[in-house]
Amino acid sequence: MTTTVSAYAAPSAAAPLERTTIPRRAVREHDVLIDIKFAGICHSDIHQVRDEWGGAKFPMVPGHEIAGIVTEVGPGVTKYAVGDRVGVGCFVDSCRECENCLAGDEQYCLNGGTGTYNATGRDGEPTYGGYSTHIVVDEHFVLRIPEGVELDAAAPLLCAGITLYSPLKHWNAGPGKKVAIVGMGGLGHMGVKIAAALGAEVTVLSQSLRKQDDAKRFGAEHYHATSDESTFEQLAGTFDLIVNTVSANLDLDAYLALLRVDGTLVNVGAPEHPVSLNVFSLIGGRRSLAGSMIGGIRETQEMLDFCAEHGLGAEIEVISADRINEAYDRVVASDVRYRFVIDTATI
Amino acid sequence: MTTTVSAYAAPSAAAPLERTTIPRRAVREHDVLIDIKFAGICHSDIHQVRDEWGGAKFPMVPGHEIAGIVTEVGPGVTKYAVGDRVGVGCFVDSCRECENCLAGDEQYCLNGGTGTYNATGRDGEPTYGGYSTHIVVDEHFVLRIPEGVELDAAAPLLCAGITLYSPLKHWNAGPGKKVAIVGMGGLGHMGVKIAAALGAEVTVLSQSLRKQDDAKRFGAEHYHATSDESTFEQLAGTFDLIVNTVSANLDLDAYLALLRVDGTLVNVGAPEHPVSLNVFSLIGGRRSLAGSMIGGIRETQEMLDFCAEHGLGAEIEVISADRINEAYDRVVASDVRYRFVIDTATI
Repeated sequence: MTTTVSAYAAPSAAAPLERTTIPRRAVREHDVLIDIKFAGICHSDIHQVRDEWGGAKFPMVPGHEIAGIVTEVGPGVTKYAVGDRVGVGCFVDSCRECENCLAGDEQYCLNGGTGTYNATGRDGEPTYGGYSTHIVVDEHFVLRIPEGVELDAAAPLLCAGITLYSPLKHWNAGPGKKVAIVGMGGLGHMGVKIAAALGAEVTVLSQSLRKQDDAKRFGAEHYHATSDESTFEQLAGTFDLIVNTVSANLDLDAYLALLRVDGTLVNVGAPEHPVSLNVFSLIGGRRSLAGSMIGGIRETQEMLDFCAEHGLGAEIEVISADRINEAYDRVVASDVRYRFVIDTATI
Repeated sequence: MTTTVSAYAAPSAAAPLERTTIPRRAVREHDVLIDIKFAGICHSDIHQVRDEWGGAKFPMVPGHEIAGIVTEVGPGVTKYAVGDRVGVGCFVDSCRECENCLAGDEQYCLNGGTGTYNATGRDGEPTYGGYSTHIVVDEHFVLRIPEGVELDAAAPLLCAGITLYSPLKHWNAGPGKKVAIVGMGGLGHMGVKIAAALGAEVTVLSQSLRKQDDAKRFGAEHYHATSDESTFEQLAGTFDLIVNTVSANLDLDAYLALLRVDGTLVNVGAPEHPVSLNVFSLIGGRRSLAGSMIGGIRETQEMLDFCAEHGLGAEIEVISADRINEAYDRVVASDVRYRFVIDTATI
């Protein structure tokens, strides 16, 4: 028996989001019912609502940065109890059988994970995301939000946080390593905080010097404007790791030249159009161009625990639901420091 | 006091190579004089002779796959004695002070290594390569060719061998790993032999099935034609490591899709023109596109010792020097199995 709950949905790619109701499934054996408190606005919500990536299903309720409180658990649930502070990220199911799922890399499920929204669940029903008052999720795909991180600042960790934490860990950001974060938006500002907390020497590469003071406050030691040509001369061969959070097409050869031997440039955002590079940029220093997509459930929990331990949360601007459409325009205009979070009590 | 020795040189980019004489420096404190016995013909010799990479210096004596016998040593030489079997690869000097040189990665010398030919030495003199009867090289940049590898089959190991050995080792080709070698030419055939000897499960991806029997003989377990569309469907998500030896522009997205999560596609040849790819091909499986260039002196020695231990040498066609120009045309036409080696007694 489904429940009807309030939500903000886009009726079509061309229309603004508006208040509506959606069904949520009854709590099953291993399910957790979550009273959503906050939902972050990720740039990918906008891409999907506007069908810029194709395959949009309407009505669409975006939101994969979800923080809330458990209000009901199924009889088979062992990890969570009513009252627990929890989160949900970019996916709510996966096959749990393929080698990637078994390795804890559910984000790369070979049989196709189930997105938190704009997807079809294994039960054949559409999934609806966090711009809503409640959500029902299998406990395996629910994260614990530790005391010490406020729920509003925790919400963006479920996507922006893990998107940066996973590659920083995978490519060994830490003491003695020089790490550059390209772009200082919702993703980038979390990259600075996490890389600094991991002990790396952090440099921000951003178009202008506008956010320099913030970056230093978040833990960056250096900040350079990429609009300044001398930046690329000055920093040639410097970094062990560069994490690129910018979706626009960059001059990859110029960024690869900033890497030391064996350095890696990891993309966590992807431009719509193919990128181009000179293979000599890789060969001339055994360099790598890589990509990384969010993280698995186990690693996402590790990230939340790490953030709590280090007192890290996202920098947020909490808004009421009636400002979602305005917020979208501001995200597209890069006019947010650094993440909008919807107070779902206003939905 | 320089010595005058015989060599084959290109007088200009447009002219065929012809017999001439060149100077070789007197043996210095740490130098070794080598009586060259064999010199391999690498495709990059042709690119440089024809000035396809720019910066060609004429007259040019190509050749960076050199095998011979020590006939004189400087007073400070400790590693070699007269009569030793030795080789010289792609570089004959480096700064020896930068972090890469100190780490044994002289091929990535930050101050610019000295190429075996078409370069200017630290003494200001031009360097001339292996298409010659003798060469004088600092002992640090000389390799020992172990008993058990014939000098003619050893020559191509100094470039083709190390170009494949280094990335195979760096990206952990070995038991339990599925490795694909793209292209079965001078580089590729050594990749098959070395990867198989390292214990990896080796697949060859080549345009046609023409060289299938050879590949199996060299140790490949599988062989697929890339001209067959079904190859890419059948092998999706298969490999831990793909080493691309082909310089032509490939459909990188198609090859990246053959990698498992965390897999790497390493380029050891570079197309003249920029390559293009969709960043989603990397993000969707934490994949890497990398490059690798020959190897350092320590690793080149390790490779030669490994080849001797496993009885590996290049498959060669030994030619007299008067057939160099004809051999060049055949290399460009991919009409060689698998490496031409010049018998330098004929120069």
